[in-house]
Amino acid sequence: MDNLRAISLLGATGSIGKQTLDVIRAHRDAFRLVAFSAGRNIEQARIIIEQFSPKVVCVAQKEDADTLQSEYIGRVRIVSGEDGLIEVATMQEADIVVNAVVGSVGLVPTLKAIEAKKTIALANKETLVTAGHLVMKHAADHGVPILPVDSEHSAIFQCLQGEQQKNIECIILTASGGSFRDRTREQLEHVTVEEALKHPNWSMGAKITIDSATMMNKGLEVIEAHWLFHLPYEQIDVLLHKESIIHSMVQFHDGSIIAQLGTPDMRVPIQYALTYPDRFPLHIERLNLAQVATLHFQKVDMNRFRCLQFAYEAGNIGGTMPTVLNAANEEAVAAFLTGQISFLAIEQCIEQAMERHVPIAHPDLETIRAVDRETRQYVKSLHM
Amino acid sequence: MDNLRAISLLGATGSIGKQTLDVIRAHRDAFRLVAFSAGRNIEQARIIIEQFSPKVVCVAQKEDADTLQSEYIGRVRIVSGEDGLIEVATMQEADIVVNAVVGSVGLVPTLKAIEAKKTIALANKETLVTAGHLVMKHAADHGVPILPVDSEHSAIFQCLQGEQQKNIECIILTASGGSFRDRTREQLEHVTVEEALKHPNWSMGAKITIDSATMMNKGLEVIEAHWLFHLPYEQIDVLLHKESIIHSMVQFHDGSIIAQLGTPDMRVPIQYALTYPDRFPLHIERLNLAQVATLHFQKVDMNRFRCLQFAYEAGNIGGTMPTVLNAANEEAVAAFLTGQISFLAIEQCIEQAMERHVPIAHPDLETIRAVDRETRQYVKSLHM
Repeated sequence: MDNLRAISLLGATGSIGKQTLDVIRAHRDAFRLVAFSAGRNIEQARIIIEQFSPKVVCVAQKEDADTLQSEYIGRVRIVSGEDGLIEVATMQEADIVVNAVVGSVGLVPTLKAIEAKKTIALANKETLVTAGHLVMKHAADHGVPILPVDSEHSAIFQCLQGEQQKNIECIILTASGGSFRDRTREQLEHVTVEEALKHPNWSMGAKITIDSATMMNKGLEVIEAHWLFHLPYEQIDVLLHKESIIHSMVQFHDGSIIAQLGTPDMRVPIQYALTYPDRFPLHIERLNLAQVATLHFQKVDMNRFRCLQFAYEAGNIGGTMPTVLNAANEEAVAAFLTGQISFLAIEQCIEQAMERHVPIAHPDLETIRAVDRETRQYVKSLHM
Repeated sequence: MDNLRAISLLGATGSIGKQTLDVIRAHRDAFRLVAFSAGRNIEQARIIIEQFSPKVVCVAQKEDADTLQSEYIGRVRIVSGEDGLIEVATMQEADIVVNAVVGSVGLVPTLKAIEAKKTIALANKETLVTAGHLVMKHAADHGVPILPVDSEHSAIFQCLQGEQQKNIECIILTASGGSFRDRTREQLEHVTVEEALKHPNWSMGAKITIDSATMMNKGLEVIEAHWLFHLPYEQIDVLLHKESIIHSMVQFHDGSIIAQLGTPDMRVPIQYALTYPDRFPLHIERLNLAQVATLHFQKVDMNRFRCLQFAYEAGNIGGTMPTVLNAANEEAVAAFLTGQISFLAIEQCIEQAMERHVPIAHPDLETIRAVDRETRQYVKSLHM
């Protein structure tokens, strides 16, 4: 790459967003931040504006946008809401759109960015989970690459370089098992929010850390992998690997397995998406396997991790069912984080939402959004 | 590949040769054996002729060639000696030459096969160890690919697909540690040939199994890797990994590591070299990491495995020194296998041969052969 790559970053103040900024900061000669969204974190938005001098910034609330705009008149265009997100996602100068927002709010901006022919670096799981059929078709129609940012999918994507789709036997997503991997179901009855937020290997946001503890995170990744790598669910396996050193693997039909590994650091997959198909130097701690000494692997118990089972079911049913899975999970996790429901009630909410839902095949965007809303209302009603 | 690939196989009766025949047998629609060499194993040569109907067969001895020729008049051309090997290696019909002979006898046929523009599937370590500078230049000059067959080099070659040379930080060759990996040097004093021939993971020939026990095998692989992957010795590491599940790895300058793994089965790398860049189905036992449960890694102790240290030294000195390393090792291992010297005397022979040798830079073929002969005579004289 001889020229600067212009980056629009959706979700700059979250965990992935911050690390994306780290990567851009480390390669000022290669990357330029031209736009970002910051949700409600105005203070952080100011700091990013000062450091990177972007042209467009989106915040969630109109009032915040007005406040910020008055501070940066003539220097930065400040926008807000979903329209603002779309403006950031489709900004003309941008070459790559990094979608690092959390939740289903990431979907429409992704579709719009695809229409604007931006390369998509996708960290937002819900985009593919709820609308994988729309997003992947849209990307194919517009000739736009979807580059995974998630460590597992980036691992698989890296392992597939130079390989042929027809030769894939299966992909193996590794799972740390999250904060509670060594607890029985009985021990999960009374876990606290604080305990759930302690992830053993990765430093991540609150929602994804809870998803990691329930293994819904892995379930969402299975559905994401289905769309990203064009594979049926029976060719997507999950393997417990508590060290999170092997980030995922691809098994080919000659029995050969290619794996990607390293110290758990999200800057590696983030940077890979930004430099693909090249790799830039990254000054992080190197993996020392002699020091790690042992790697452990274990079969996943689907009864112990029911959310993963739900995800396979929702994925196989298809249509609007993954949207229900995802919306029910988002609401249930929010309720758990605010102390409204217990940890195990998360999976009960999801199970109940899926049981009552009559799936609609090949849903369009409106249908997906309607099912998303309706599911959220239902799950909220469960713990009111 | 739509057409049959025509294969010439040097060393059909050895361990790699037999497994190459297995691979050809499993894909009769893709491969055809057009020529092979069989050394002194005439009985085995007859069986292979009956099964594969090749056009040219080479045996070591003129008398054996005459005997065989009388049996296959008009059906197969039987040749002998080094000229015969070269005829097999350069046979016009052949697309790929698999060089699976053991020892430095594999060198000249490889050079001749390159001149004849054959794709080389190389299992003969000594070819690159003694004449890597000549072979790689010759291959580049003639636009001929050298495809590794050794499991470690095949692993690295697979990991490098879709990647760029400039992004490699180092390659990591894994080493099982061989038959004696858990023994101290004191315990190595009186080990028997039978004990040394029991390799824990791989089923291989006698010479290579002893090389595995001394770790000279890994040392030769380090030198081979230096030539195959155009890397200086400081970018080639060795890691003890007793399960031989991860066959080797490549670390890139972004900290990402790509590894190739699987159950230890030489048919995987052999077939990969024959189908490259494609992969064919192979019906071998799949790796079940949940069942393996644990992988172990350990730093290599260079004082414990002195042959590995010698190999790094010989490689770094370059010129004729790797030829001395290799010739001294071949003679010393032969002497150990016939009960003439002890296990630890192998490394003494090599050390003495290297110490007395004044290396010649950029040796030509004649110089290499002269140093090879001279070294063998010297090592033989040590235990007469």
